[in-house]
Amino acid sequence: MTYNILYLCRMEINLKTDEYFMRQAIEEAKKALEFDEVPVGAVIVCGNSIIARGYNYVEHLNDVTAHAEMQAFTSASDHLGGKFLNECTLYVTLEPCVMCAGASYWTRIKRIVIGAADKKNGYREIGKKILHPKTNIEFGCLETECGKLLSDFFKDKRK
Amino acid sequence: MTYNILYLCRMEINLKTDEYFMRQAIEEAKKALEFDEVPVGAVIVCGNSIIARGYNYVEHLNDVTAHAEMQAFTSASDHLGGKFLNECTLYVTLEPCVMCAGASYWTRIKRIVIGAADKKNGYREIGKKILHPKTNIEFGCLETECGKLLSDFFKDKRK
Repeated sequence: MTYNILYLCRMEINLKTDEYFMRQAIEEAKKALEFDEVPVGAVIVCGNSIIARGYNYVEHLNDVTAHAEMQAFTSASDHLGGKFLNECTLYVTLEPCVMCAGASYWTRIKRIVIGAADKKNGYREIGKKILHPKTNIEFGCLETECGKLLSDFFKDKRK
Repeated sequence: MTYNILYLCRMEINLKTDEYFMRQAIEEAKKALEFDEVPVGAVIVCGNSIIARGYNYVEHLNDVTAHAEMQAFTSASDHLGGKFLNECTLYVTLEPCVMCAGASYWTRIKRIVIGAADKKNGYREIGKKILHPKTNIEFGCLETECGKLLSDFFKDKRK
């Protein structure tokens, strides 16, 4: 019995790693794929629970602001009833663009965990100063899986 | 009679100057004031007509993405049925922040006319590279009026 409880506790702890949450963001990116959108997904986590999800939906809405992160920010703030996300972590499958990094500044988000780098449109092309000074950044979480979703998508488009 | 028609034509031409459209953006900013929001307003013009309006509504929505420009971009794209605003001009009473400038990049907007400069949070603090290379920028349109709206607002807040 004691063994079973310990096993369940360990399972719970194991589930809630950065990789666990990034896999959830990948699931969001796959939803974008279903709509033939560039596959980028995001989740926002607060207190070890996912409070918001979003996936890129720019083409269907004809709206450049409909990036995965932007939708997740709006949804997370709605959930919390406040605009600041200073106790939250954003998991996103692709490095945020300038717009999304600029939005993250206003949210004062605590942490951003990024899958694949974006050497063309990532915020780092402009400068790291875009982010809020209190935001911690981690790159490379499930980078290969996140990147493959994108490279497969664009390979298909070029066919 | 000819004189009257010419007079009316000239009046019509005069009405549709940058100042005319900035005054419309100021009207939007005043709507934000009515909700005790930081008074920033925007309009987007295409073919000499206003196709979208927006005003800052961040506090009421608890949503950092609800800047005047962001709402105007979404609304303009919805009106046109396409995400690109490359034939449009944005008139905004305050220099866009990084998020809004980043969004303008994705819209490929033709021109941005700005009222007051924002030395603290304006996009130029990060760098002019944020904007799309085809976007033309003009500063200082009704700068005093636009700036006074903001300084009066913050003066009141400090009382």
